Amino acid sequence: MNEDELVAALRARLGASGPRIPTGIGDDAAVLDDGTILSVDAVVEGVHFERAWLALGDIGYRGTSAALSDLAAMGAAPVAILSSLTAPDAQTALAIMDGAGEAARAHGATIAGGNLARGRHVELHTTAVGRARAPWLRSGARPGDAVYLTGTVGAAALGWRALARGVELPAFAARWRRPRARFDLVPHLAPSACVDVSDGVALDLSRLCVASGVGARIELGRLPLAEGFAAEARALGLDPDALALEGGEDYELLFTMPASLPPELATPIGEIVAGEGVHVLGRDGTFALHDGGHRHF
Amino acid sequence: MNEDELVAALRARLGASGPRIPTGIGDDAAVLDDGTILSVDAVVEGVHFERAWLALGDIGYRGTSAALSDLAAMGAAPVAILSSLTAPDAQTALAIMDGAGEAARAHGATIAGGNLARGRHVELHTTAVGRARAPWLRSGARPGDAVYLTGTVGAAALGWRALARGVELPAFAARWRRPRARFDLVPHLAPSACVDVSDGVALDLSRLCVASGVGARIELGRLPLAEGFAAEARALGLDPDALALEGGEDYELLFTMPASLPPELATPIGEIVAGEGVHVLGRDGTFALHDGGHRHF
Repeated sequence: MNEDELVAALRARLGASGPRIPTGIGDDAAVLDDGTILSVDAVVEGVHFERAWLALGDIGYRGTSAALSDLAAMGAAPVAILSSLTAPDAQTALAIMDGAGEAARAHGATIAGGNLARGRHVELHTTAVGRARAPWLRSGARPGDAVYLTGTVGAAALGWRALARGVELPAFAARWRRPRARFDLVPHLAPSACVDVSDGVALDLSRLCVASGVGARIELGRLPLAEGFAAEARALGLDPDALALEGGEDYELLFTMPASLPPELATPIGEIVAGEGVHVLGRDGTFALHDGGHRHF
Repeated sequence: MNEDELVAALRARLGASGPRIPTGIGDDAAVLDDGTILSVDAVVEGVHFERAWLALGDIGYRGTSAALSDLAAMGAAPVAILSSLTAPDAQTALAIMDGAGEAARAHGATIAGGNLARGRHVELHTTAVGRARAPWLRSGARPGDAVYLTGTVGAAALGWRALARGVELPAFAARWRRPRARFDLVPHLAPSACVDVSDGVALDLSRLCVASGVGARIELGRLPLAEGFAAEARALGLDPDALALEGGEDYELLFTMPASLPPELATPIGEIVAGEGVHVLGRDGTFALHDGGHRHF
């Protein structure tokens, strides 16, 4: 059972929504009937990171930014953060929470509460609370819409894969350690559907397509890449195309829109089509169905 | 540094509240300016439980009820739950979440979302979201108020301490495995200050006293105990008075009120006084200052 199948099983058992919950399990965040947007995300030592790869403050920063990014993906403005931390001792907890506080401030949110538990390893579970008048769901994409991506992708994945090999690539490591949620772009966009890139362009786009009942055709050659990305990836023996398509943890916005956008806001990478699945135009000039990428279960 | 000192340090660094957060770090739950009440609580394998002591569904049930109890302690009505779960495999995750779903339904809440991460051991971090017009804070107790306790205390602690010794006391084990949050009593109470009993009567009351800038005098002989509690505790070599005063995880409401209440709602156990600290009238007929009980850090 992969993560998406597990989420579907939970949705069937627990109910996707309720009278006061217009959007429940299965989107980036839950939507309450008063426009409150809620999302939770976790970073787990030994699963999402090893402590040798980052400072304690980075753990708090990453976890907090990742949770906030789910709000940006719904077109919401951030309000509050709850940080539930498991850590081995008080000094470790304080150092992690200093980073969480920095991330909250950087995004205009306040840490309003949390929980502390002592445990052998570090886990930070972050709830982000925001508000939106008309939340951007995953389910609104229609054939003919263009597919857009903000910023660049693959950089965070290159950063941590280098760290896992003992190589520090400062610009790319920073993208992984201290990601930003794209609230700066929210006021300028009016997407038909949106997700954030947490598990990789291919997998997150495939989830948007499933939720919308559509397919997508994107072009590998149009994925926006940071300067030096391809060369650094190849120097490490990594495939830059695979990293850009499947890397994840970029926390950029991947969205669909019928209209065209100024190029400084986002890069068009393809279009929504009738049918299903994410089809990728490769370097060989042919389209191939992509099966997604990283799944936690 | 104990847990309360750590919370104080975090409050100083992160800020207790903000423009849209009238009540932040330090109460049972955070309060947003629109009356949204938010709390998070965690159950961690090896810290709060061992798997031999309970079924997987009980882990979900306990964690969810404990988080909901913080809403009851604020006088809030439950709305939504977010469950952030770390578990080793999908089947374990589903079984835990079945229990979480039962607890949500039993309390009139809906699981609106969550997060799943794979990890070697189980952690469930539960965010509870509710609403209240006039939240009950910890800070409103005044000298002369009576101190009340709902239900009975010490039962959950007796249940898990017996389990830790390999003894199953069904009625007491059930109190620990499947606690209830006291939303049933919320409409009938109008406390000046309130907490739920998660870390023990003495420690939770001492937190209420610190927040209110008062002291308390309570009588050990008036703590409400379940039938058979003292005898079962003694049979295991445990001190029933210490369990009732410091046991924790009862999730009953401990509150203060100037007026008197019908005895079927709650038991008066003492009064709020000027000064500081929790003074307990012991079996020997003298008051002694109590230093609290369990702290996570």
